[in-house]
Amino acid sequence: MGRARLRDLGLTIGLMPPGPLNAITDVPGVLVGHRTVIRDAPRVTRTGVTMVVPREGAIWTDYAFAGYHSFNGNGEMTGIPWIEESGLLGSPIGITNTYAVGIVRDALVGYAVEHRYSHRFHLPVVAETFDGYLNDIEAFPLTREDAFAALAAARGGPVDEGNVGGGTGMRCHGWKGGIGTSSRHVEVPGGAYTVGALVQANYGRRHHLRVDGVPVGRELEAGAGAVEPRGSIIVIIATDAPLLAVQCRRLAQRATAGLARAGGLGFNSSGDLFLAFATGNHVREPAEGPYTLHMLPHAYLDAFFEGTAEAVEEAILNALCAAETMTGYQGTVEAIPLESLVEIVGRHRPSAGP
Amino acid sequence: MGRARLRDLGLTIGLMPPGPLNAITDVPGVLVGHRTVIRDAPRVTRTGVTMVVPREGAIWTDYAFAGYHSFNGNGEMTGIPWIEESGLLGSPIGITNTYAVGIVRDALVGYAVEHRYSHRFHLPVVAETFDGYLNDIEAFPLTREDAFAALAAARGGPVDEGNVGGGTGMRCHGWKGGIGTSSRHVEVPGGAYTVGALVQANYGRRHHLRVDGVPVGRELEAGAGAVEPRGSIIVIIATDAPLLAVQCRRLAQRATAGLARAGGLGFNSSGDLFLAFATGNHVREPAEGPYTLHMLPHAYLDAFFEGTAEAVEEAILNALCAAETMTGYQGTVEAIPLESLVEIVGRHRPSAGP
Amino acid sequence: MGRARLRDLGLTIGLMPPGPLNAITDVPGVLVGHRTVIRDAPRVTRTGVTMVVPREGAIWTDYAFAGYHSFNGNGEMTGIPWIEESGLLGSPIGITNTYAVGIVRDALVGYAVEHRYSHRFHLPVVAETFDGYLNDIEAFPLTREDAFAALAAARGGPVDEGNVGGGTGMRCHGWKGGIGTSSRHVEVPGGAYTVGALVQANYGRRHHLRVDGVPVGRELEAGAGAVEPRGSIIVIIATDAPLLAVQCRRLAQRATAGLARAGGLGFNSSGDLFLAFATGNHVREPAEGPYTLHMLPHAYLDAFFEGTAEAVEEAILNALCAAETMTGYQGTVEAIPLESLVEIVGRHRPSAGP
Amino acid sequence: MGRARLRDLGLTIGLMPPGPLNAITDVPGVLVGHRTVIRDAPRVTRTGVTMVVPREGAIWTDYAFAGYHSFNGNGEMTGIPWIEESGLLGSPIGITNTYAVGIVRDALVGYAVEHRYSHRFHLPVVAETFDGYLNDIEAFPLTREDAFAALAAARGGPVDEGNVGGGTGMRCHGWKGGIGTSSRHVEVPGGAYTVGALVQANYGRRHHLRVDGVPVGRELEAGAGAVEPRGSIIVIIATDAPLLAVQCRRLAQRATAGLARAGGLGFNSSGDLFLAFATGNHVREPAEGPYTLHMLPHAYLDAFFEGTAEAVEEAILNALCAAETMTGYQGTVEAIPLESLVEIVGRHRPSAGP
Repeated sequence: MGRARLRDLGLTIGLMPPGPLNAITDVPGVLVGHRTVIRDAPRVTRTGVTMVVPREGAIWTDYAFAGYHSFNGNGEMTGIPWIEESGLLGSPIGITNTYAVGIVRDALVGYAVEHRYSHRFHLPVVAETFDGYLNDIEAFPLTREDAFAALAAARGGPVDEGNVGGGTGMRCHGWKGGIGTSSRHVEVPGGAYTVGALVQANYGRRHHLRVDGVPVGRELEAGAGAVEPRGSIIVIIATDAPLLAVQCRRLAQRATAGLARAGGLGFNSSGDLFLAFATGNHVREPAEGPYTLHMLPHAYLDAFFEGTAEAVEEAILNALCAAETMTGYQGTVEAIPLESLVEIVGRHRPSAGP
Repeated sequence: MGRARLRDLGLTIGLMPPGPLNAITDVPGVLVGHRTVIRDAPRVTRTGVTMVVPREGAIWTDYAFAGYHSFNGNGEMTGIPWIEESGLLGSPIGITNTYAVGIVRDALVGYAVEHRYSHRFHLPVVAETFDGYLNDIEAFPLTREDAFAALAAARGGPVDEGNVGGGTGMRCHGWKGGIGTSSRHVEVPGGAYTVGALVQANYGRRHHLRVDGVPVGRELEAGAGAVEPRGSIIVIIATDAPLLAVQCRRLAQRATAGLARAGGLGFNSSGDLFLAFATGNHVREPAEGPYTLHMLPHAYLDAFFEGTAEAVEEAILNALCAAETMTGYQGTVEAIPLESLVEIVGRHRPSAGP
Repeated sequence: MGRARLRDLGLTIGLMPPGPLNAITDVPGVLVGHRTVIRDAPRVTRTGVTMVVPREGAIWTDYAFAGYHSFNGNGEMTGIPWIEESGLLGSPIGITNTYAVGIVRDALVGYAVEHRYSHRFHLPVVAETFDGYLNDIEAFPLTREDAFAALAAARGGPVDEGNVGGGTGMRCHGWKGGIGTSSRHVEVPGGAYTVGALVQANYGRRHHLRVDGVPVGRELEAGAGAVEPRGSIIVIIATDAPLLAVQCRRLAQRATAGLARAGGLGFNSSGDLFLAFATGNHVREPAEGPYTLHMLPHAYLDAFFEGTAEAVEEAILNALCAAETMTGYQGTVEAIPLESLVEIVGRHRPSAGP
Repeated sequence: MGRARLRDLGLTIGLMPPGPLNAITDVPGVLVGHRTVIRDAPRVTRTGVTMVVPREGAIWTDYAFAGYHSFNGNGEMTGIPWIEESGLLGSPIGITNTYAVGIVRDALVGYAVEHRYSHRFHLPVVAETFDGYLNDIEAFPLTREDAFAALAAARGGPVDEGNVGGGTGMRCHGWKGGIGTSSRHVEVPGGAYTVGALVQANYGRRHHLRVDGVPVGRELEAGAGAVEPRGSIIVIIATDAPLLAVQCRRLAQRATAGLARAGGLGFNSSGDLFLAFATGNHVREPAEGPYTLHMLPHAYLDAFFEGTAEAVEEAILNALCAAETMTGYQGTVEAIPLESLVEIVGRHRPSAGP
């Protein structure tokens, strides 16, 4: 586990309650697995693979509605044409480094073949961010086995954050970044659901970072070196609500609000790609006839929109809080100083009113 | 009614059977109403409004899934942002001339207000093609009352084609065009459905026109004047199958195949905008809780895709066959000569095989 | 002019300098015209039309690249199919109430006809938000003449904000909203440009409102009535930089960041539609051959993205600060109390550091 | 080379003249390379990689405008988020089998690394169709070296068609399919250009196949076995015209018309993904300031639309005519019988007129 989570510091984001784990794994059936690869020889490796596995793996034949949104398309996410066409997700979701998208994507195909899910050819979803500062990415260190290991490691319960899995070598707002997660409990007429977010955070300029609106980045920047990394962020949103594909797309797009509040602007070099899926309906393959589905009224989605934005914002901050200082290929990336963070937010808290 | 329909000439398109009326009104509950405005003074008017009314008008509060596709966007269709966001259609669909989109759109809002459907503000769908050759469009002859008249005229049963409603002054492949319709009977495991198309055909060059693959346009062109109109085509697709929004979008896109087979290329000046809706699910407003829905498996859609392409192709040809020669604002547009059409297709029919 | 602008209160947004007017009219050639219609009889009217006129009106024949983004599509913006197809804007942009989109749209067509710009048919851009609380919108009070009056009123220089033009009857975050504008000076290698934003702000819940990150809405809400309006926001972005259509689309999408920072979430009932145009290239019609164009490298756009987000955020706050308390059709909507706003932000300003 | 090209049989498509080679390589600087892998042990392999290399390979640092269209998204094409965001293509384009997209994609990244094009991370374009009937695709036979070999084989001049490269094991309309290409000479005011198409054709039902409108498939089907393959088609469009990204997207979409005329319907299981690029402008990286570009007026594009549709239609038929009967993993796929094809088309040619 990482150093801390935002709430360990006494800080919260938004007004909605998180789920029990405050993690994407609060959504029933959603598993997360990390494969972290750290070694110094023969070449410096700080990278990995993270797998988000819906339905405890049954997603291969029990599809879930899903939707995609690109806030800035300087990145890769395979499998998107079919998600946009069909509205359905039929594979686990891999997240890794930019140069390993292909091998992880083919590994997921291979996994389907091995498990005889390949009655249809597969178009799995694999996304990436770039870790070439801490990781000698040109060594192409990841293998099919690393992807399989991430799948094998997938489980429910608390999720490791920070320097793990695909997030191992990532940077965020000039500090060490990586994997983060959060969730929200959503109540609507007639039902209660969970929306969870998992991010691989590797984006942003230091001075844009905000914590619950407080311009932490600007204050921290004053005393910090001139690291100016820019990168990407992948956001996976999960919910157990019975949403259709168009509704999942709406959720995916709302990740933008959480990202923007934390300080993301979708810079040119950033691949800010978001995917949301909803497990509240089952679309089993092969089909045996028309599916019976449920759909929440669109008007109920406001609570999900708010929950998504909050969970994404907090997941980013959890990634920052969890990630530890790392030295790698081209240098060292510092962890965000938690004491300073708390102190700065405290100073911006309202003094006594009039 | 117009001069003839394609099948009256002994010609058919495709392999699938049409519905009883071979019209969009074969889809239960779908009504069509025309308001045709033809007068010579004070200014030459050859225009009108056509309304496609799903669910016999209950669409205002019993929404249907819908999807949109633009083959070439040089046209207007209001209401699209909400259809793309929500996947739902909540109004009748108006089709008129390019300069009257606004007045017909506001008239539909007014109709909703009058009938107290306005518990929410409305974003009705109105599309257009340009009839400025036969119609003195700059006179802005259409009124709110014309839109209301088209709504009032909406009914099931056979649909008038050719020089009626929004199609009154339109041209197609250099001949008189206008409104056309067709349908197909679709059988899939466990159910039988109808897919119907209605077009307002105002596009295309003469030499591109094909009838069941036969290059009728090239042969007719030899002996014809050099009319070179280019315009637009609006296609409305309806089905009673339980399709979701993403599936409706797929149907809408398949109109492209029917259009391409008839000779459409989506020329630069053409607004080739397609909308499909499916009445097999009910999304009633205001909502009283989660909706229960059905969804045909995507794999069943092939028959709908084929039916859509066939119905669109035949609807275009029905518009051409029905439309009569018209003299208007800037001149005369000839009806396609039916005898020649039959003769040319006949000559291209296979002679005895080996 | 309205009560105040945000900077009049000693508050600023972001780090980039505004243009001389801190308005969309800092972009050379961009004019803004308002037609405000306020009367109490025969029916209560609080509405209007705002026109954004690029190139001092020459836009009708000297097109500008443009791009569109929908953050939430529960709204109307005409003209979008052609902007998405061609990447070009060829008309002034009207903003009005939801029920008047049609009449203003047709009025722009009529204006083009009258001025003989109609060598091609036109697909003008008109957008809307809903003012049915303060304005008896069901009276359909606006006329073609109101649209023409807004065009005739278009001029450069300072822009009236608040209860003017299309923004007359609007609400925002539970307070009186309306029109707001702001701009930023953008420097990139080899050139300096302006990016400006104009908003018609009619969206949001009170407790989400933030001013430079400070949760002003939550604090103000404690002592306020339970107004819970939800609506829409239209954002127009202008720049004089030589951007292409794909780049304008990117700018339009960045309005999301400014909106999110102010407290927007794209709620279900909101039509959050954004349009950006760039006057740095000229695409004149009719064409006399290939156009020669310039294009800033994508990597230069980061400054524009940041400027767009800042200008949108500040334009929203300018709308709130300018708008005055208004009593209308169904009641009264209070202006945001400026003293409280300043006081709350002040209390959240950092006390002395460690 | 394959058995024949359509024109070798005395048949032509459309009215526009082809380029000298009637191939995508008529577009100056466009190279095509095939790596064909056929072996029977240890596992039956009938697959390969095809590379389309713009600008003789300089595309890595001299980007070209590009646009994407999905007619049916049941397929994979990597690199699309960045092409949609930026409008730019910065890599060769790989086409291979469904399970090898990843390895070919990473190989292109590796190629860029090796050649020091990796000053920025790369998002190369690789697409696929499914060859699992003739090829034991579950053996994952392709390697990085195969991708490199396809790149190394890239050259101008005549293009091998049929059972080569990525098309080695493909089927089309029930016959042996594969790679096909064609081109058209396009004249517009002030300039002459070429538009070329290359397809990897693996789609379609036998009875839908048409040759110049003649229903060849229905007639051939009568005497043929009940092969009912369904698959995908990848279409690459190239032109040397100075088109912008939005214009390339329009060209890509027009591939639909050519495909529809040949008998494609975008069936559910088909990945019909189209990419168009234009080399008439240069967007060099790293940028040294604003680019100077040219853009053909949109109104000139009609000739390109028509040329694209014709070239795609003929490229598909060239793939069919060139491909030879192949026996592989699960059986034999017959080549389309050329004599019958010619005979059937001849029988549908017009007999003497009246």
